[in-house]
Amino acid sequence: MSTSRKTSNPRKAAGAVELAGVIPYLVSPVHPRTGRVLSPVLARLCRDLIRQGVHGLSPLGSTGEFAYLTAEQRLAVVETVVQASAGQVPVIPGVASCTTADAVAQARAYEKLGADGILAILEAYFPVDDEGVYQYFKAIADAVSVPVTLYTNPNFQRSDLTLPVIDRLSRIPNIRYIKDASFNTGRLLTIIEKVEGRMQVFAASAHIPTAVMMIGGVGWMAGPACLVPKQSVELYDLCRAGKWTEAMALQRRLWRINQVFAKYNLAACVKGGLQLQGYAVGDPLAPQAPLSEQGREDVKAVLASLA
Amino acid sequence: MSTSRKTSNPRKAAGAVELAGVIPYLVSPVHPRTGRVLSPVLARLCRDLIRQGVHGLSPLGSTGEFAYLTAEQRLAVVETVVQASAGQVPVIPGVASCTTADAVAQARAYEKLGADGILAILEAYFPVDDEGVYQYFKAIADAVSVPVTLYTNPNFQRSDLTLPVIDRLSRIPNIRYIKDASFNTGRLLTIIEKVEGRMQVFAASAHIPTAVMMIGGVGWMAGPACLVPKQSVELYDLCRAGKWTEAMALQRRLWRINQVFAKYNLAACVKGGLQLQGYAVGDPLAPQAPLSEQGREDVKAVLASLA
Amino acid sequence: MSTSRKTSNPRKAAGAVELAGVIPYLVSPVHPRTGRVLSPVLARLCRDLIRQGVHGLSPLGSTGEFAYLTAEQRLAVVETVVQASAGQVPVIPGVASCTTADAVAQARAYEKLGADGILAILEAYFPVDDEGVYQYFKAIADAVSVPVTLYTNPNFQRSDLTLPVIDRLSRIPNIRYIKDASFNTGRLLTIIEKVEGRMQVFAASAHIPTAVMMIGGVGWMAGPACLVPKQSVELYDLCRAGKWTEAMALQRRLWRINQVFAKYNLAACVKGGLQLQGYAVGDPLAPQAPLSEQGREDVKAVLASLA
Amino acid sequence: MSTSRKTSNPRKAAGAVELAGVIPYLVSPVHPRTGRVLSPVLARLCRDLIRQGVHGLSPLGSTGEFAYLTAEQRLAVVETVVQASAGQVPVIPGVASCTTADAVAQARAYEKLGADGILAILEAYFPVDDEGVYQYFKAIADAVSVPVTLYTNPNFQRSDLTLPVIDRLSRIPNIRYIKDASFNTGRLLTIIEKVEGRMQVFAASAHIPTAVMMIGGVGWMAGPACLVPKQSVELYDLCRAGKWTEAMALQRRLWRINQVFAKYNLAACVKGGLQLQGYAVGDPLAPQAPLSEQGREDVKAVLASLA
Repeated sequence: MSTSRKTSNPRKAAGAVELAGVIPYLVSPVHPRTGRVLSPVLARLCRDLIRQGVHGLSPLGSTGEFAYLTAEQRLAVVETVVQASAGQVPVIPGVASCTTADAVAQARAYEKLGADGILAILEAYFPVDDEGVYQYFKAIADAVSVPVTLYTNPNFQRSDLTLPVIDRLSRIPNIRYIKDASFNTGRLLTIIEKVEGRMQVFAASAHIPTAVMMIGGVGWMAGPACLVPKQSVELYDLCRAGKWTEAMALQRRLWRINQVFAKYNLAACVKGGLQLQGYAVGDPLAPQAPLSEQGREDVKAVLASLA
Repeated sequence: MSTSRKTSNPRKAAGAVELAGVIPYLVSPVHPRTGRVLSPVLARLCRDLIRQGVHGLSPLGSTGEFAYLTAEQRLAVVETVVQASAGQVPVIPGVASCTTADAVAQARAYEKLGADGILAILEAYFPVDDEGVYQYFKAIADAVSVPVTLYTNPNFQRSDLTLPVIDRLSRIPNIRYIKDASFNTGRLLTIIEKVEGRMQVFAASAHIPTAVMMIGGVGWMAGPACLVPKQSVELYDLCRAGKWTEAMALQRRLWRINQVFAKYNLAACVKGGLQLQGYAVGDPLAPQAPLSEQGREDVKAVLASLA
Repeated sequence: MSTSRKTSNPRKAAGAVELAGVIPYLVSPVHPRTGRVLSPVLARLCRDLIRQGVHGLSPLGSTGEFAYLTAEQRLAVVETVVQASAGQVPVIPGVASCTTADAVAQARAYEKLGADGILAILEAYFPVDDEGVYQYFKAIADAVSVPVTLYTNPNFQRSDLTLPVIDRLSRIPNIRYIKDASFNTGRLLTIIEKVEGRMQVFAASAHIPTAVMMIGGVGWMAGPACLVPKQSVELYDLCRAGKWTEAMALQRRLWRINQVFAKYNLAACVKGGLQLQGYAVGDPLAPQAPLSEQGREDVKAVLASLA
Repeated sequence: MSTSRKTSNPRKAAGAVELAGVIPYLVSPVHPRTGRVLSPVLARLCRDLIRQGVHGLSPLGSTGEFAYLTAEQRLAVVETVVQASAGQVPVIPGVASCTTADAVAQARAYEKLGADGILAILEAYFPVDDEGVYQYFKAIADAVSVPVTLYTNPNFQRSDLTLPVIDRLSRIPNIRYIKDASFNTGRLLTIIEKVEGRMQVFAASAHIPTAVMMIGGVGWMAGPACLVPKQSVELYDLCRAGKWTEAMALQRRLWRINQVFAKYNLAACVKGGLQLQGYAVGDPLAPQAPLSEQGREDVKAVLASLA
């Protein structure tokens, strides 16, 4: 389990891929009895999202239920997404583990499958000190040639990235992006000031994308974009053009999705919404509950209001 | 302790005062041995802030150490600020208590002294249910003629205002504003959508003012504005004019204050900074610690960088 | 507000009073409209509790709603309890404040009224560092001649006493007891080991009194003892006699009260239970809710099961 | 992944094995580079613990770093422990997962390897409602013939078992034990009262074993028992004999271990202590830090004081 060897991937040297824009967190459709990944529906979703203009695809984020899948299921998900995207947009799978060795193995495997970047997540049972956090992410970055996005979510994870660690990690060449899902938008501005262009910031569902774009973000990675890709891309374009008044008018309508999703399990909402749109992606893995009847009505209503 | 009688204040009927813009949270300078409120320095600070263009003054907010003052000290603070402002800008003192009766008594006393509005805060020892929270704020609003601003700070208080309670309270005519200090900027947008113009939203130090202005806020109430009133007003004017690029350039520089203050006690930072600017406002009340030597250096440096 | 002068109280020099046994936290009956303390019913409760054998009385603890009373109401409560107890058992009122100056003033006033000890509580709005916590409690101890009991409740307070601070405070001669309401019984044993007899430990409602007695505690201070004083004293006597099997049989029955109270507001439960027993102590102060109909039924049932 | 089929295991029908006494949580020694489980040292530790009189062995608890191991490593650990124990004491491995399907597969695999019971743990990323929690544990119990111990640890896990769920689960025949690691000893008594003998309660390191024995517990499962098995068994025997005074004298000395361990990572402490005792079990898996030099000194000193 040495972490020193670097997978060679000349097509995608660090710096070659620039990430920006709307990058939906994909769901992971899995057969409830056999556990087989439902590749056809996942591939169709990827192709449809690309057709709507999204700028990247991220399997195995929170919405992708990374914490609920076996190693085999994870590999099948990544393979499906890489093939379906066919090089049209970058694919950035999530790598999440409690151990450095397992995270490095995941990252290498996904790069070998053709991933264009890695979204790196630290899971923890016992608390980890700053040096351990640093070494974990450094080992992942050292193991791959593609750019790495740091992910931190203090709401669901048992560790959080401190500012000093973020600063240290920003100095590793292929750690190029960060996504902080803390609800604390001011923290994003603090990070932007701290890393002085060495890393770019993506918004998460917990933040208002338009506000993050205005303070200097480069886009957002989020589950809801699976359901409203076209409107998300429209919002991104308005932000990029500096049309803030029009952006905020659209943003207010799109924010209703977050208000609905905040009431239910995130994976259940996105999977439930995709079912309403004709994608047979199934329910979240047990013991998570499927979206309730009330939840389905709420999601249906908010999607109808945005159509 | 009946709460039904309404203090008569014909000059300031509900609706007469519109709040917006930069409203600094004032400090409460108190003599460390005698406990006497240091009115001259507080009055001078008020006059200087008004001269720099601030749009209102709020004594007895968090920064004003409301939790650390006796009833007499609180009255002296409000009286000093009302007299110093001399009607040039609205004065909105904080009212904070664990009991409805005490809060109503405070609110009436401050209105009688000439307050133009009330910032209403619920303290709690045991948890309070939604109905209790509603009745507490309703009783304050019923007791005065001036407009009421709701204040909620989940970081330091033992109760938080839920969305259903905020919605109910927004239907009381003279509850007209809300300040949420939760770090969660998305929550502000959710509130704005929910109350549909019945209440206006102010940002707190925990939020990026420019971002809050863009999503529909009307200004900010914050301690740091005591130290940089001129630059704060300049930022507000840029936001109001829709000059978002210029606003963000200034915002980034001003945000450094928040980064410094986040490391220390808030009251210690503002009092320490004012001392550096020549206001002998003293230290926070014991057992709070004065700003440390390192803290003074940090505050001094950030203020110099903004001069 | 000098804290150096020591109130002279030759009758009750430090060391003169030894606290141990069952010390009920009293409620604070207050007229809902006038705010007047209902002294007759409080005095009758005190006399009845003494007749049932309790070993001390503690007004103005959590159950006594210290956070909800004005300075005048607090004084009236202490005065009533001191007079009613007539020297038969020690009276240990709670002193709680955010500032050292106010806490010292309270402690002196209560000692002057005849209190036999002080239960010292630190309230906080902004966090206080260890040195501030130490100085706060030291100032209270320096201001009085009677023994001081430290109180810490991480569930409802915004500060907690760390082990190093507890150790330092245990070396101040008249700081002689500690009550930790943390739910963490193991922490009590850790404290007992740490302070090596310099301080004695009392259990709180959050702990099982019999377990705390077995690990070395000297008694308990708790609100529920107001409702079952006789059985509480019986339990204490069994523990003192080392009759652990009989003690646990009684303890199990008494524990049902804690299970019921855990579902509701503590002050509401004790006040509601006392009303059922014929004491017209009223409800907790608004905006706290009175005990609900379901709560009254639950409290009634558990009291009946213990009669 | 059907969960309805029941593995047949006639030797160990539900009810056949009664658990009680001292059951150490074993560590998982793993080669830092190859990831291979170090079976010889683990087997030697098991044999030595049995020789010292422990009443069972539990691999893959928190101390066993279940969250840090691959499926293969987990199987190797259980296989090693089952073979080393050779039927002398029951072996109760931990089963932990975010999904029902994976937990059921683990439980079946461990029973097939010869496990005498299952310690069932629910991991979670998104919150799970009570019905989901119930179904998760029920599926594990349905999948095996051996007795199941529920484990709940609110300090490190993202779900906690509520009293209603514990009550429902206690009615499933082969769910026979519960271990709650909440620090809240009173909660253990509440559980004991609630489940009325349908389940027995084990203490965790967070509780004082002697106190839990006195309130009705049947033993303890804990990492520190790996280091002081003989003294732990002695303490258990004193408790069983009702010699509470002698028990507490020993308990106080043993509690020092908890005080030391509370300062460091639990797995690092137990692995570090075992290294000091001559077991080459290595360090916790990266990115967890090995026990620091100061930690080694502290552990060494406390072990010496107990020898």
